[in-house]
Amino acid sequence: MHHAIARILKYCGALASVFAIAVCALEGAKSAAQGGKQSQPHAGASANSSDASPIYGVRIPAGYRDWKLIAVKSLKVGDKADQLRAQLGNDIAVKAFKEGTMPFPDGSIIAALHWTRVLSDSDSAVIAAQFPGAQSFVIGSAVNVQFMVKDSKKYAATGGWGFADFTKGKPGDQKLHEACFPCHGPAKDHDFVFTHYAPTP
Amino acid sequence: MHHAIARILKYCGALASVFAIAVCALEGAKSAAQGGKQSQPHAGASANSSDASPIYGVRIPAGYRDWKLIAVKSLKVGDKADQLRAQLGNDIAVKAFKEGTMPFPDGSIIAALHWTRVLSDSDSAVIAAQFPGAQSFVIGSAVNVQFMVKDSKKYAATGGWGFADFTKGKPGDQKLHEACFPCHGPAKDHDFVFTHYAPTP
Repeated sequence: MHHAIARILKYCGALASVFAIAVCALEGAKSAAQGGKQSQPHAGASANSSDASPIYGVRIPAGYRDWKLIAVKSLKVGDKADQLRAQLGNDIAVKAFKEGTMPFPDGSIIAALHWTRVLSDSDSAVIAAQFPGAQSFVIGSAVNVQFMVKDSKKYAATGGWGFADFTKGKPGDQKLHEACFPCHGPAKDHDFVFTHYAPTP
Repeated sequence: MHHAIARILKYCGALASVFAIAVCALEGAKSAAQGGKQSQPHAGASANSSDASPIYGVRIPAGYRDWKLIAVKSLKVGDKADQLRAQLGNDIAVKAFKEGTMPFPDGSIIAALHWTRVLSDSDSAVIAAQFPGAQSFVIGSAVNVQFMVKDSKKYAATGGWGFADFTKGKPGDQKLHEACFPCHGPAKDHDFVFTHYAPTP
C-alpha cells in the first residue's frame, strides 16, 4: 500500500510530496544503507556514502536539534498520518527569514522535524471536564527529519537546494529523493521554501 | 462568556488552566497596563511594573524567540480554540531537559508560544487530490506567550517557579496569574512542568 502511495505522490507538488517523503521515508528506510546516525557537519560527501542522501550527498548537520525555531505545523491524512512538525534553521537561514532575504543565501540550512501526534488523555480529560470534546495533542515518537541545504553552485540544477530525508539516521533511497525538487516547484516564488517564519507572540 | 469560562477553569488543573490562560489572556489583556512590549532580561522587577507579570514580576526575556526547541503541541477545544504551540527553553532549561536534571536548576526559563492553527487550503488541496480529507495546518497569528522562571528562593511558595502570561507584550491581570500555580499542581512529580523533551528524529 505504501509503495503505491509513494508512486502516486511522487508526481504531486507541494505538501503532497512532503507527506510522500514522510510516508515514503518508512519505505525508504528499508533500502537505506547500513550505518548509524552520522552527526557530521554538512560537507560535500559522496552521494554514495551510506550516511548521505542520494543525488545530493547531504548529511545530517551536527547540532541541528538545537537550531532556532522557524515555525510549527501539523499534518493529518485520514488514518494514514497524524503529525506534529517543526521547522528549525541554522543562523544563516533564520537571519534570512527574519530580514526577508530572498533568495536564501548559500549556507542556509532548513531542518523539518516530524513526529507522530498523539492525544494526551490525561491533559484532555482535565479540560474536557469543563469543555466536552477538548483535545490536547503532544508528540508521540519521531518519524523522520528532512533538510534543505543552499548551495547555488553545487545544486544549480535544483534551484540551489540540496535535499535529504533521514529516518533513524539513515537516508531514504534514490526514488524518494527524486521527488523532492519537483514537489517544491509550487514554492518557486519563495525560493522553493514552503515554510514561513512564525510571528513572535 | 469568556469571563465565566475563566472562573470555571481557574480551579482546574493541568492543561485546563493552560487553556484558561490562553483564552483568558484575551480578557487579561484588557486589564493589562499600558505599555509596549518590553524586551528586557528577566529581572526582579516590581510586580507593579506595567511590563511585568502580577504576583511574580516576570518580564519578557530578551531574545526568547531564538531559544532552543523543547517540544511542539496542538490544542483544540471545539470551536473555541485551535492552536499550534511550541515550548522553547533557555540554555539552562534545555540542558536540564536533555540530562533529565530534576528539579530544574535556578535560572531555567521555559517559554510557551501559542498561535492560532489554520488550515492551509493550497497545501491541503494538493494532498487531498490523492488523499481525500488530507489537512495541512499552519500557523495563523500569534495568540500569547507564557513563561516559567525558576528561582527556588524567590518563588519558594510556588514550587520555585514564577509565572507570566503576555498578550501583545502586555501581562495578563492578577486573576489570570492566580490560576497558574494551582493548575500546574498535577505536574508536581515533574517539577510542575508539563512539557517533555521531544526526541531527535
